[in-house]
Amino acid sequence: MAEHPVIEVVDHDRVRVVTFDRPEALNAFDDAMYHATARALEGAVVDDGIACVVLTGRGRAFSAGQDLGEMGRIDPTATDPDDTPGSGFPHFLDTLAAFPKPVVAAVNGLGVGVGLTMLLHVDVALISDTARFRAPFVPLGVVPEAAGSLLMPLVLGGQKAAEKLYTGEWISADEAVACGLGLRTVAPDRLLDEALDLAARIARMPVASLRATKELVVAARIDAVRAARNREDAAFARLVGAPANLEAITAFLEKRDPDFRGL
Amino acid sequence: MAEHPVIEVVDHDRVRVVTFDRPEALNAFDDAMYHATARALEGAVVDDGIACVVLTGRGRAFSAGQDLGEMGRIDPTATDPDDTPGSGFPHFLDTLAAFPKPVVAAVNGLGVGVGLTMLLHVDVALISDTARFRAPFVPLGVVPEAAGSLLMPLVLGGQKAAEKLYTGEWISADEAVACGLGLRTVAPDRLLDEALDLAARIARMPVASLRATKELVVAARIDAVRAARNREDAAFARLVGAPANLEAITAFLEKRDPDFRGL
Amino acid sequence: MAEHPVIEVVDHDRVRVVTFDRPEALNAFDDAMYHATARALEGAVVDDGIACVVLTGRGRAFSAGQDLGEMGRIDPTATDPDDTPGSGFPHFLDTLAAFPKPVVAAVNGLGVGVGLTMLLHVDVALISDTARFRAPFVPLGVVPEAAGSLLMPLVLGGQKAAEKLYTGEWISADEAVACGLGLRTVAPDRLLDEALDLAARIARMPVASLRATKELVVAARIDAVRAARNREDAAFARLVGAPANLEAITAFLEKRDPDFRGL
Repeated sequence: MAEHPVIEVVDHDRVRVVTFDRPEALNAFDDAMYHATARALEGAVVDDGIACVVLTGRGRAFSAGQDLGEMGRIDPTATDPDDTPGSGFPHFLDTLAAFPKPVVAAVNGLGVGVGLTMLLHVDVALISDTARFRAPFVPLGVVPEAAGSLLMPLVLGGQKAAEKLYTGEWISADEAVACGLGLRTVAPDRLLDEALDLAARIARMPVASLRATKELVVAARIDAVRAARNREDAAFARLVGAPANLEAITAFLEKRDPDFRGL
Repeated sequence: MAEHPVIEVVDHDRVRVVTFDRPEALNAFDDAMYHATARALEGAVVDDGIACVVLTGRGRAFSAGQDLGEMGRIDPTATDPDDTPGSGFPHFLDTLAAFPKPVVAAVNGLGVGVGLTMLLHVDVALISDTARFRAPFVPLGVVPEAAGSLLMPLVLGGQKAAEKLYTGEWISADEAVACGLGLRTVAPDRLLDEALDLAARIARMPVASLRATKELVVAARIDAVRAARNREDAAFARLVGAPANLEAITAFLEKRDPDFRGL
Repeated sequence: MAEHPVIEVVDHDRVRVVTFDRPEALNAFDDAMYHATARALEGAVVDDGIACVVLTGRGRAFSAGQDLGEMGRIDPTATDPDDTPGSGFPHFLDTLAAFPKPVVAAVNGLGVGVGLTMLLHVDVALISDTARFRAPFVPLGVVPEAAGSLLMPLVLGGQKAAEKLYTGEWISADEAVACGLGLRTVAPDRLLDEALDLAARIARMPVASLRATKELVVAARIDAVRAARNREDAAFARLVGAPANLEAITAFLEKRDPDFRGL
């Protein structure tokens, strides 16, 4: 697969910073970007010099989610991390959901679809005052992914998750922190510094202990996460084949509302 | 079974509004009312024109819970939705706990016993400033029902749930919202309008997607809910047979405190 | 095993008050103290006159955690409640995690290590304004115990738990209450009175019903708690054998910072 420069990977001492770098597409994920991010994470697992990973985005979005231009080709059951269309999402999510070192998100702006649901799999998120979030699965005629059907109720609380899932309405930065999607809001010009500072405090700890602790936290929920993802993938495959939903997604794409791009 | 006019069922476009309608009994549930509510829900499942259900109560109570006048006849293991005494509660709870479309509660007042625990199974509750709640199971000498032993700790937080379960003390409307039993408090004269507005925003979404999403949310917890209910039913059957508890319930009935009626 | 007067046990009507009583060691737990506390709890189970237990500490600490002077001898897989070195911790935790009557903690001061994680297994904690908490497992080169890898995310929320576990930073009394480790803060001179008052309100309830309800709450999570503890014990045994971690613990001991004593 041709490598696009879709992410930037820089190591600061024991912290790997992965920056989503398709600002012109509001950092929407295509297959290349999913695979590149997964590989940056995989590299951090085997590098004993890396204790912690920071995920952030370039430009005004954290991530607008799935690149819908690729959506017709998605096969959510594909797991082969290569050129198979649709293989990127499961490669990225499998890697993030079981990632054995702490992950800090510096959420610099818009998070839509997987730009929201990936926060359910990071350890700590600092959230720019300017960020806002949306789970547009139901409006698009599909269902949540990334174990959102399990984790949104657990993290946000059942009622807040239901309101946001069933209406698809926006979640403000303050609301996101109030309901546990982020640890605190931060002024935009302070965000990356504060995230790097938190990551550095974590990275001063013994790597073996960080890793063993994160593995225990993952182990306590990974079976439930996988079962939820399997149920979601089956429902998604069933719904995305329905003509009405393809129409909804097409209409969505044709609106070309820049804040609304991506799943 | 003779049909009592114990609930009112009205469809507004794609929203079915079910109103508990025994205001003279503070909407306490007898078998007829459980079955009638369960049937109104079942009808909404198979009607593709219904996207969302609203539950509310007439008068100053949402529901005072189980009609204790029928309590001696309760058999919590009965599941036949007919005239068998005690068959109403499991019929209602089985239907609500697995309900495959969003349910909004407009909690207009007092919620005691199942008037509280049913909120653990709705998706979103808007709560009148005038409402208050009580889980009187321990004071009555019995145990929580409706998977309350699992869901009260999960929803309210373990410590708040423990305080309220073990003392049986009242929960104010503000406290209920603070601990996740409701999304927000609403002035009484605005309650039904705001609940209908929220339901209408949900009902504009594709029904197939609402249904698939709610089914995923239910699937993530239904096994744990059923296991908890089985444990609770066994403990209830054991305790309700103890003479001291029958005395407690009888004393409770004889007080005839109108705010305290029902389990 | 020689009995040290390491705890005080006093019954007030139907409430058993267990006071950790090694103030000179900031109530750090050695094997004798774990066993003595476990036995005081076991005695409260079989005594039908006891409805509720209060746990508190003498002096300025609730508990500074594991007595690290004994740590080299810990065998986390031992379960025989006798003189076997390291048998105290599992005896205490097994008893507390499955305890079939309500437990109220009156947290009078510092809670470090098990002085924090035991709060994940009590029903309600009232917290002195002067208390603060720390989970120093990662800084010490080990992993959380007492199912902390499962329960800290569930109780505190995933992001707050991650921040505190991965940095080992202090949690203030206010922060502890905000994230569900305690029900409310209380002025130090009011703490024990308010805890006893809450325990007395609980103890007025029917004991059979309190017990059956607490057993249901325990049953809903005990399998997950045991699985988490087994994973933690295996990781702990693996890590504590690593030379770097023995060095970290030794350095920690040699600092002899009184606020920092104990795991």
